[in-house]
Amino acid sequence: MAGNTFGQLFRVTTFGESHGGAVGCVVDGCPPGLKISTEDIQKDLDRRRPGQSKITSPRNEEDKIEILSGVSEGKTTGTPIMLMVKNKDARSQDYEKLKNIFRPSHADFTFQKKFGIRDWRGSGRSSARETLARVAAGAIAKKFLKEKIGIEFLAFIEQVGEIKTKHEKITKEMIKLIEKVRDEGDSIGGIIRGVIKNVPIGLGEPVFDKLSADLGKAMLSIPAVKGFEIGSGFAGAKMRGSEHNDSFFTDENGRIRTKTNFSGGIQGGISNGETIQFRVVFKPVSTIRKEQNTVDLNGKDVKLEATGRHDPCVLPRAVPIVEAMAALTIMDHFLRNKAQNL
Amino acid sequence: MAGNTFGQLFRVTTFGESHGGAVGCVVDGCPPGLKISTEDIQKDLDRRRPGQSKITSPRNEEDKIEILSGVSEGKTTGTPIMLMVKNKDARSQDYEKLKNIFRPSHADFTFQKKFGIRDWRGSGRSSARETLARVAAGAIAKKFLKEKIGIEFLAFIEQVGEIKTKHEKITKEMIKLIEKVRDEGDSIGGIIRGVIKNVPIGLGEPVFDKLSADLGKAMLSIPAVKGFEIGSGFAGAKMRGSEHNDSFFTDENGRIRTKTNFSGGIQGGISNGETIQFRVVFKPVSTIRKEQNTVDLNGKDVKLEATGRHDPCVLPRAVPIVEAMAALTIMDHFLRNKAQNL
Amino acid sequence: MAGNTFGQLFRVTTFGESHGGAVGCVVDGCPPGLKISTEDIQKDLDRRRPGQSKITSPRNEEDKIEILSGVSEGKTTGTPIMLMVKNKDARSQDYEKLKNIFRPSHADFTFQKKFGIRDWRGSGRSSARETLARVAAGAIAKKFLKEKIGIEFLAFIEQVGEIKTKHEKITKEMIKLIEKVRDEGDSIGGIIRGVIKNVPIGLGEPVFDKLSADLGKAMLSIPAVKGFEIGSGFAGAKMRGSEHNDSFFTDENGRIRTKTNFSGGIQGGISNGETIQFRVVFKPVSTIRKEQNTVDLNGKDVKLEATGRHDPCVLPRAVPIVEAMAALTIMDHFLRNKAQNL
Amino acid sequence: MAGNTFGQLFRVTTFGESHGGAVGCVVDGCPPGLKISTEDIQKDLDRRRPGQSKITSPRNEEDKIEILSGVSEGKTTGTPIMLMVKNKDARSQDYEKLKNIFRPSHADFTFQKKFGIRDWRGSGRSSARETLARVAAGAIAKKFLKEKIGIEFLAFIEQVGEIKTKHEKITKEMIKLIEKVRDEGDSIGGIIRGVIKNVPIGLGEPVFDKLSADLGKAMLSIPAVKGFEIGSGFAGAKMRGSEHNDSFFTDENGRIRTKTNFSGGIQGGISNGETIQFRVVFKPVSTIRKEQNTVDLNGKDVKLEATGRHDPCVLPRAVPIVEAMAALTIMDHFLRNKAQNL
Repeated sequence: MAGNTFGQLFRVTTFGESHGGAVGCVVDGCPPGLKISTEDIQKDLDRRRPGQSKITSPRNEEDKIEILSGVSEGKTTGTPIMLMVKNKDARSQDYEKLKNIFRPSHADFTFQKKFGIRDWRGSGRSSARETLARVAAGAIAKKFLKEKIGIEFLAFIEQVGEIKTKHEKITKEMIKLIEKVRDEGDSIGGIIRGVIKNVPIGLGEPVFDKLSADLGKAMLSIPAVKGFEIGSGFAGAKMRGSEHNDSFFTDENGRIRTKTNFSGGIQGGISNGETIQFRVVFKPVSTIRKEQNTVDLNGKDVKLEATGRHDPCVLPRAVPIVEAMAALTIMDHFLRNKAQNL
Repeated sequence: MAGNTFGQLFRVTTFGESHGGAVGCVVDGCPPGLKISTEDIQKDLDRRRPGQSKITSPRNEEDKIEILSGVSEGKTTGTPIMLMVKNKDARSQDYEKLKNIFRPSHADFTFQKKFGIRDWRGSGRSSARETLARVAAGAIAKKFLKEKIGIEFLAFIEQVGEIKTKHEKITKEMIKLIEKVRDEGDSIGGIIRGVIKNVPIGLGEPVFDKLSADLGKAMLSIPAVKGFEIGSGFAGAKMRGSEHNDSFFTDENGRIRTKTNFSGGIQGGISNGETIQFRVVFKPVSTIRKEQNTVDLNGKDVKLEATGRHDPCVLPRAVPIVEAMAALTIMDHFLRNKAQNL
Repeated sequence: MAGNTFGQLFRVTTFGESHGGAVGCVVDGCPPGLKISTEDIQKDLDRRRPGQSKITSPRNEEDKIEILSGVSEGKTTGTPIMLMVKNKDARSQDYEKLKNIFRPSHADFTFQKKFGIRDWRGSGRSSARETLARVAAGAIAKKFLKEKIGIEFLAFIEQVGEIKTKHEKITKEMIKLIEKVRDEGDSIGGIIRGVIKNVPIGLGEPVFDKLSADLGKAMLSIPAVKGFEIGSGFAGAKMRGSEHNDSFFTDENGRIRTKTNFSGGIQGGISNGETIQFRVVFKPVSTIRKEQNTVDLNGKDVKLEATGRHDPCVLPRAVPIVEAMAALTIMDHFLRNKAQNL
Repeated sequence: MAGNTFGQLFRVTTFGESHGGAVGCVVDGCPPGLKISTEDIQKDLDRRRPGQSKITSPRNEEDKIEILSGVSEGKTTGTPIMLMVKNKDARSQDYEKLKNIFRPSHADFTFQKKFGIRDWRGSGRSSARETLARVAAGAIAKKFLKEKIGIEFLAFIEQVGEIKTKHEKITKEMIKLIEKVRDEGDSIGGIIRGVIKNVPIGLGEPVFDKLSADLGKAMLSIPAVKGFEIGSGFAGAKMRGSEHNDSFFTDENGRIRTKTNFSGGIQGGISNGETIQFRVVFKPVSTIRKEQNTVDLNGKDVKLEATGRHDPCVLPRAVPIVEAMAALTIMDHFLRNKAQNL
């Protein structure tokens, strides 16, 4: 109940703090016989790794994944898969002076009050470093779903600050804005669009565990996420039913389809075979170089000026995390539907 | 795994179709010794009941709640509480002609494909009638949280179509718009704001089961909901960190507070003692009187003109549902936090 | 977490006290399309009903089952099935004088101390009447497993007091002993053997959720059960490996079988295709007419002489309960195996 | 659902095969602030380690535990605790020739049929080596329960083959018998008694999750266990109610106690404050040096003569495992009771 497990049938339990021994996860419930290698997983991990470009944190970590159980002779065996990255480049001294300070909009304050104790080195358990475990587990789900059913996951940055795009690539203007914000010692938010193609009809449950609700929870569990919408989303507030309803028709292959997709690929909580479309908003990163007012453990006013290595915008590294959480959600519902209905 | 249970420690399992024998729920895990009566529950149920005003469906149901277990001499005993409303005003014949038709943007198509069978009378399990069970269970959670901790839940309509308000009351313009839309045989969407006051610090878990993630799932599980945002929400995409960060200060009572509340009362997934603020968007109701194109079970084109009794706008009746789902989420996390940390 | 739900994928949540409004359950996760009627369920309920013979309690209850959701036109729809029996013959006054007394070896004392409150009428939630909900849910599982896979469940009384049998029928000597014990105002224990035939290979999980462990838990959750053994059971303590090991061979149909079955049909926690064999021991019923020493709510010594209507031996009515719990366990593991492996 | 997690609130997920990279677990839900060190855990691990005496397997492993997360500055932080032992002394070649053979009464056959694939090196996931993760997690639970509530766990060998004892120490006769059996290339079973002292009143749930049912499941999930009994156990079959009922009385300290303890410390599924007493039977180890008949992957008859390093009797090493599983069960129910009732 401490909330470190995601999924019901494809269960991912993550562990690890940013400056402890290791970060990783146990994946329980993976079907046996799937070919999986460290390379399959490393590929996605490298996409979220810091130090890749000018607009991400210069923190340099190899983030080398190890598979310590559940895979034999290159294939999953149906037993728990333990994936782990050892922590190496952990400069705890950077955080020593933050030990007694509650950084604004970080989890320092809430952690301290909830648990009465906290690992103050690098945000501890609330570090975005925890998400590498999600990406690693997600790589397995993506591989299974791609090979067995043809499902594809794609996420891309749609907005940074005021700048929007329709492309799947980050634009030059976005990069310029991020660099400008970084140079000002500040940070900025944005929106990632998620797209899931070739989803079979029938995934998701009709009441509490709607596919849209579970995707929403998956996204809202990513650090810095403040909102989620599916299909028409918030724009639907202004629409009429006659406009929003997705008319059914039969296509040339005899398959029942919808003409529009305001539903975002999910109706009544269940996938309808159309492409799933959703959007996730990220707030600006809480760690900024600009001086801020805050309080210490005793409630005394203090000034805070961060010096650690941080991203001015979380979105470039969040793209594979969005894909991973989407894959974990779909994988879980694929197995759930299989159990009851197939 | 069929997703009819909400919560981990305060577990609500709902059952029932709109035209079956009954709709209700079993509430498991309620602390013993709470005074509860049918009146306590009926009050909230009456707020979501149809037939209350000109702008809601004229379907007339008593929706009289019965408590069939778990309460003895007016108090909860710690055993499962079964709450039930018998179905009475069920005019199945209204739906006979819809038996073989997939209504656009309803769950008819996805249900049929997922389960291979469906109760076609009045949307069956996907009927909004299921939500009365949530409201009933939510009434227990609300009473417990109010009496024991002082937590208050408030939801109100903030937007219908293009019309917005800051009041907690629905405006005349909104009502006029809903009536207009109804007269046109159409429907319209909108936004409900949810507010939770006096939440203790420390509810929510740091990783997957963030309080924001679980609130988001709770809301996205309500029929017709297409999006959820907490605190700054989608507006956060355009903000800078220096603007978005909520500075800590110590108030006159020696309590650590934040000056702004862009976090919406939740930081790092854990409540920080500020008021929780969130918004939920509802799409326009799928059932409209206007003629629509769709297909039947065999994929053949058909015209559809609804004649049942339906709401042109779901929001007036959704307000107590939003409150109930919020209460169920907070109640569950209150017990979870108590188990590990108090 | 209050433990009123059994199963992971075929989830049965029971509710109800012996003298409240109703006793029943919600079955969630049942595959759609199974033909089920109240008659199918009533048949098994009648086997556990009191008042059937001279050796069971004369309490006369119809125990008429109602299906209030999840079944449409005679078939399961994949949504929650609510099954309920209304309480009728509830003579609360019989229990009025027991309100403040802790009956020896009943749950009165532990309930009062755990919850601080208890429904003192007829053992409340701890009444064996709760088991009718298990039998009702079990009837659905049995029907599914019989029709789809051919699995059969059989339980019979193997021992009452000192008297043992190999037959599947209760012997005259056993009946005489039970009558004698009843006439003395006393009660007696015994052993039920459970047999499950035609179980497919592969049910059960290798570590914590071994099929034997889940069967054991299922049986130990039945009121009055004090022990469980599978295959060789306690006799295995005295055996040598060379004697206990079940040699594999290939039978005339090319199927790999074992020559002996000391494993009881389960190896490494997983069914091996042989008949599952287990034994369950029931203590003598706690309610006896003989005078007993005990204490009241204030710890004061009191004499207790029961006058209610009770069984002198729980075994005749427990047979269908053992079958039902076995069926719920197998059904759950059938779906679990299907999700991951089939 | 693949059954590698034990517990609801104190959740232990184990991973690892006998000859893979590592064996370990993630403990989720541990209360924060508990002092814990590798020494605390190593102590119990050393008790189950092979190579300790003449009567256990000569396989020499250090089994050195590492704590890789969830502990900061010597205390638990409330986040997942990852515990791991790297595999070192793994002589896979010993198993090469067993690759295609189903060893009698091992999990080879059922694993192969369930998953279609298996790690054939040293029993893979079904190796008793998995239990070191249980012992490691159990050490944390034991420390918490001892320090915070004073609960003590004690298990001892009560019977080996025909030889019984009342002492808590293994007798010379038992050791002689085990040596004799080993010299004959055979193995032998036995019984371990478990004792839990100072359990508070109120742990356990009244229906499915009775404390006795969850203890039973915990024990039956240990490799080689074939039966479990609590209190009077199987002997209760022959008893009368007047003899078996535990009379209540008030002791000199004003505490309500029972004169006898046939209930074994649990009544109606809930602890009553008396010492919990249970017995667990272990079959003789499946691996023996004596020649056996079996079949290979193709069902062809083969002779099997084991040459690996194995225990002739599992009991000496199983003692700390029984204690660990008991501690995990009690810890989980302690938190569950705290959530709902304290």
